[in-house]
Amino acid sequence: MSSGDVGERLAQQLEFLVEIDKAKGILRRSYLMDQSRRENDAEHSWHIALMALVLCEHAAESVEVARVVKMLLVHDLVEIDAGDIAVYHLDEENERKKAEQEQAAADRIFGLLPAEQGAEFRALWEEFEARETPEARFARALDRLQPMLQNYHTAGRTWREVGVGADRVLALNQPILADGAPALEQCALRMLADAVEKGYLPAKSGEKG
Amino acid sequence: MSSGDVGERLAQQLEFLVEIDKAKGILRRSYLMDQSRRENDAEHSWHIALMALVLCEHAAESVEVARVVKMLLVHDLVEIDAGDIAVYHLDEENERKKAEQEQAAADRIFGLLPAEQGAEFRALWEEFEARETPEARFARALDRLQPMLQNYHTAGRTWREVGVGADRVLALNQPILADGAPALEQCALRMLADAVEKGYLPAKSGEKG
Repeated sequence: MSSGDVGERLAQQLEFLVEIDKAKGILRRSYLMDQSRRENDAEHSWHIALMALVLCEHAAESVEVARVVKMLLVHDLVEIDAGDIAVYHLDEENERKKAEQEQAAADRIFGLLPAEQGAEFRALWEEFEARETPEARFARALDRLQPMLQNYHTAGRTWREVGVGADRVLALNQPILADGAPALEQCALRMLADAVEKGYLPAKSGEKG
Repeated sequence: MSSGDVGERLAQQLEFLVEIDKAKGILRRSYLMDQSRRENDAEHSWHIALMALVLCEHAAESVEVARVVKMLLVHDLVEIDAGDIAVYHLDEENERKKAEQEQAAADRIFGLLPAEQGAEFRALWEEFEARETPEARFARALDRLQPMLQNYHTAGRTWREVGVGADRVLALNQPILADGAPALEQCALRMLADAVEKGYLPAKSGEKG
């Protein structure tokens, strides 16, 4: 590789690393545990990458942790263009629209990198979305457990804002948790039952909490 | 392991994962590139973990990237208790005080985890601090390059607030960059020269920018 090529590669890599600064401004529905504000994609991604390191022994199958971490670090980058949509707000129509926007976002954002590196990162994001490998199944479970933790430790703030009951929280999250980390599924079930007990959310959607 | 042990381990792990949410509230001197606010430790850690994945080919020596990423994800956790001090504000006296506070913070925070896991994380943090392995040298270089990027893309905002010239920025950062990633050191030198050219900071501390 000539020094010109090195310079060109590094310039592309830095352009990507500057672009992704925007993830720090993509707000999620979840609140920080001190309730001071909503959290953003960068903070969420850091938190679940650490969850992967700490909780890997609870994965349903043997996983290559380093690949889970990589996947989690990049999994929300497409939201720089496509934005964050709460799982509770997805119906078939905007599920399809979201998928289209995210594909276009992946083209643009991973396309900033040198070709082979962009392809590697994009493949990690697609693996996460497809949820077919042990690594992706575990990563997806953590991506569901983390907002439940944020909710539980803020007296159910987002659950109350969205107006869901434990039945709907379970319907959306339990299959993904069970698939990726049964021990964490059990933990989530206990946490949710306790949240209902404490009055953070009603057992059934539509009831008063 | 009995299920009671599993429950106890998981409870300790979750306590740690809840505690580290506070890193999202530890503000650094650097600003987001859109200048809307200062960034926090969680965002910074996410950003440099991704830098490690993208820029690993520029490490001075061959590195195990997964270990660099782990190190970067945990490197600032001690600041939950000890706070962030800008490198420009460190003298011998508060360098010593900072080291003491960080040791106590490490005892408390890594001590929340199951013993062998806490010891592993603490060892990673100590490796980062000691800067003796190829992984730590590369990680430390990234930890210096990232705020330079944030500064360059905010017209030198923190440099101007702190009132430093390029000479002082170089004195503090160049040895660490050179040691961990010479190609990134060269890139930082060019960026800084351009920042002086653009009037973001003076060439020499004490001069008007």
